[in-house]
Amino acid sequence: MTGFTTDAFGRIVGANQVLTDPDLMRGYLADWTGRRTGAADAVVRPRTTAEVSAVVAECARTGVAVVVQGGNTGLVGGSVPEVAGGPVVVLSTARMTDVEAVDPVEMCVGVQAGATVASIAAAAAAAGTRFAIDLASRDSATAGGIVATSAGGIHVVRHGGTRAQVLGIEAVRADGRVLRRWSPLRKDNVGYDLPGLLAGSEGTLAVITGVLFAVVDQPGHTAAAVVGIDTADEVFTLIRQIRRAGLVIEAVELMTRAGVALVVEAGARPALAGSSGYQVLLEVSGADPVQRLAAVLADSGVADAVVDEGPARPLWELRERHTETIAAASTTVPVKLDVTIRRRDLDAFLADLDELIASLPYPCRLVVFGHAADGNLHVNLLDVPVEQQAEVAHRVLERVVAREGSVSAEHGIGRDKREWLSVVRDEVDVATMRAVKQAWDPDGRLNPGVLFPDAPD
Amino acid sequence: MTGFTTDAFGRIVGANQVLTDPDLMRGYLADWTGRRTGAADAVVRPRTTAEVSAVVAECARTGVAVVVQGGNTGLVGGSVPEVAGGPVVVLSTARMTDVEAVDPVEMCVGVQAGATVASIAAAAAAAGTRFAIDLASRDSATAGGIVATSAGGIHVVRHGGTRAQVLGIEAVRADGRVLRRWSPLRKDNVGYDLPGLLAGSEGTLAVITGVLFAVVDQPGHTAAAVVGIDTADEVFTLIRQIRRAGLVIEAVELMTRAGVALVVEAGARPALAGSSGYQVLLEVSGADPVQRLAAVLADSGVADAVVDEGPARPLWELRERHTETIAAASTTVPVKLDVTIRRRDLDAFLADLDELIASLPYPCRLVVFGHAADGNLHVNLLDVPVEQQAEVAHRVLERVVAREGSVSAEHGIGRDKREWLSVVRDEVDVATMRAVKQAWDPDGRLNPGVLFPDAPD
Repeated sequence: MTGFTTDAFGRIVGANQVLTDPDLMRGYLADWTGRRTGAADAVVRPRTTAEVSAVVAECARTGVAVVVQGGNTGLVGGSVPEVAGGPVVVLSTARMTDVEAVDPVEMCVGVQAGATVASIAAAAAAAGTRFAIDLASRDSATAGGIVATSAGGIHVVRHGGTRAQVLGIEAVRADGRVLRRWSPLRKDNVGYDLPGLLAGSEGTLAVITGVLFAVVDQPGHTAAAVVGIDTADEVFTLIRQIRRAGLVIEAVELMTRAGVALVVEAGARPALAGSSGYQVLLEVSGADPVQRLAAVLADSGVADAVVDEGPARPLWELRERHTETIAAASTTVPVKLDVTIRRRDLDAFLADLDELIASLPYPCRLVVFGHAADGNLHVNLLDVPVEQQAEVAHRVLERVVAREGSVSAEHGIGRDKREWLSVVRDEVDVATMRAVKQAWDPDGRLNPGVLFPDAPD
Repeated sequence: MTGFTTDAFGRIVGANQVLTDPDLMRGYLADWTGRRTGAADAVVRPRTTAEVSAVVAECARTGVAVVVQGGNTGLVGGSVPEVAGGPVVVLSTARMTDVEAVDPVEMCVGVQAGATVASIAAAAAAAGTRFAIDLASRDSATAGGIVATSAGGIHVVRHGGTRAQVLGIEAVRADGRVLRRWSPLRKDNVGYDLPGLLAGSEGTLAVITGVLFAVVDQPGHTAAAVVGIDTADEVFTLIRQIRRAGLVIEAVELMTRAGVALVVEAGARPALAGSSGYQVLLEVSGADPVQRLAAVLADSGVADAVVDEGPARPLWELRERHTETIAAASTTVPVKLDVTIRRRDLDAFLADLDELIASLPYPCRLVVFGHAADGNLHVNLLDVPVEQQAEVAHRVLERVVAREGSVSAEHGIGRDKREWLSVVRDEVDVATMRAVKQAWDPDGRLNPGVLFPDAPD
């Protein structure tokens, strides 16, 4: 640290956009679950890429670590400034919310990093198009955040994840230089896919300041259904049957009996009369989707199902109310894990979880939901005593690893899961990732402590 | 160079798999068009990843450059060993052709780098699934090659390019270490997307030895049509109308009057009676696709169209015979360029080309075809005197750049287009790519001279 003062930041972004008062900084120092709290010398709120560039260059000059923060909706501590050692600033993109007009010919939309998913979706819809990424935190999660974690959400089965939507990117390198690829072209095989590499890099390679996203055609007619099934793997048979019938799968969400009971208790209208082990929310598009979907379900021998014309809000409500209901119902902050399981192991893994919960010496309720077509489950443990949470999370992830699943489907590694990196990636892989990190950020000042287990912390 | 002998390679792969005889090496030293020829100290043909690892480690020890070669179907000189200075070996994946059984539950197939696209497609089809990548060179192009160039082909509009099909990868680093991520999981946000970075890296970061590809569900019923249109941008209106009708676009191929005339002259059956400026081959899937597609076309006011049930080989033949017909018809090796143009500029660019051709002081016929939905055009110039070819290629690419298009849609940069890298990517971008290259291959021994303009050559 040489000559670090917050005054320099004030000259760049305006003194009132440099927060040093603990009361004003508080919201930027903890994640939204309140599990993690860090500390920072300042929170800096630039408005433009040029300001970000100048701030990051100043940080480079004075040896300051930079923790970039978007909507702060992350669940793995990736945007919490827990940095030991030298000075650290939180670089908030809260003021970088510009959303350009959608280009309906090139089918793209340019946004600043702080634009929310909801604002991008609204712009896309206003132009008669659709933003392919949708997730529960849409009102807070930002463009920069979903790219930095390559977030998924409910339409990955249809359009791929965030990485697949990134046509162009603008990012500030660790030394303040601005990297910009900004072309709507769908095919542009000119050198390394740096936008794709930044997607999922969790703020450790560069500070994303803008994104040029693809938008997609709105689906024509859609239908939704809630279907009762007894084993999770029936989902994949259903998906294939639906596709064979000429329909397009737009979303496939798995819910458990426990989760549905909880949201119904909280006031949501039940969709099914029966008590199947699982309920699956399907959304499809295509010609005559309601009739065709109903016909497929009848042919497939599904006993308990309800089909409705899209967008079918009451059916979606069952799924969407899970997060808030879980938070309200749990006597402690819920333990939330985001994992992927091989398709053939989904049922066995769900049984693993039941067994684990049954063996715990303290109260714990399990609610699982998720993007079943991707094998992506959100595992929620309610009522777990706070002092037991880290250990039970570890035990869940141990079972994921034993089944060769992913310890992070779409939330990233952040700080919470960095101990797992060298468990699920081999030595050459981790060494290669470190070499890539070194190439982009030789001084290790961008989001130190995130991703790699023994980075300066 | 210290102690380099080809004997060491013989001990690894067997002496008969180390070619040094000029006659035996010839096919490995030139590209298939015959435009480019290089030289090498040996061609080494390993069978396994362990052998590749040992060969590359030996090259590292003795300072030998490694040019990896798959089907050698590239069009930009990326696999031709034009390396000045120290010793160089061509590492051929010709014997690494294993294709594992398709996993129909996890929907993936593991292959060695030398497996051809056709062999992967056959394995996928045998399991009732589909390999999403299909391109004209399917019988020769290899897994390693299509990943190294992130090749596209005819179904990108439906499934994305090669990068989107890569679930896992195995690659040998410049020092011989083996990097392996090999999981069928669709979501696995654990660290940097190294497989995605290797896709499109053109052999400059590591030697790809194996790929775990996704396979997709076969489309249900399909239909194809050839449609006459007068301006290329009508394609995008058609695509939207087709999607609104609940059909899925599987392929959209543009042909010009000149190209169609050429293949018809060569014996292909014409599809349309009229003489529209362009003919578009459409493939769709969905419910009752023939009737629905015909209805959309009738509604859209298309005057000249023929619709057939999929797979509609006679219609596809019109498009597929372009490459061979062009090669046979041209009095010199055809100039072949692969570019992407913004959707709104397609017609203007096609007019640019006509103007350019008309201005040439030598005979030149123009045939353009390509993957219209992606804005990807394959520009073929016939009859151009060999000594004029580099210059006219340059002039075409100048017009691409003037329209903010891509000088390489899906063929890569190779050696042919490296001068364009710093034209279409800015200084920070190129510097970042160089830093990434340095991180993976500090001695610059993997495919030197490819991608970067002033690499050792």
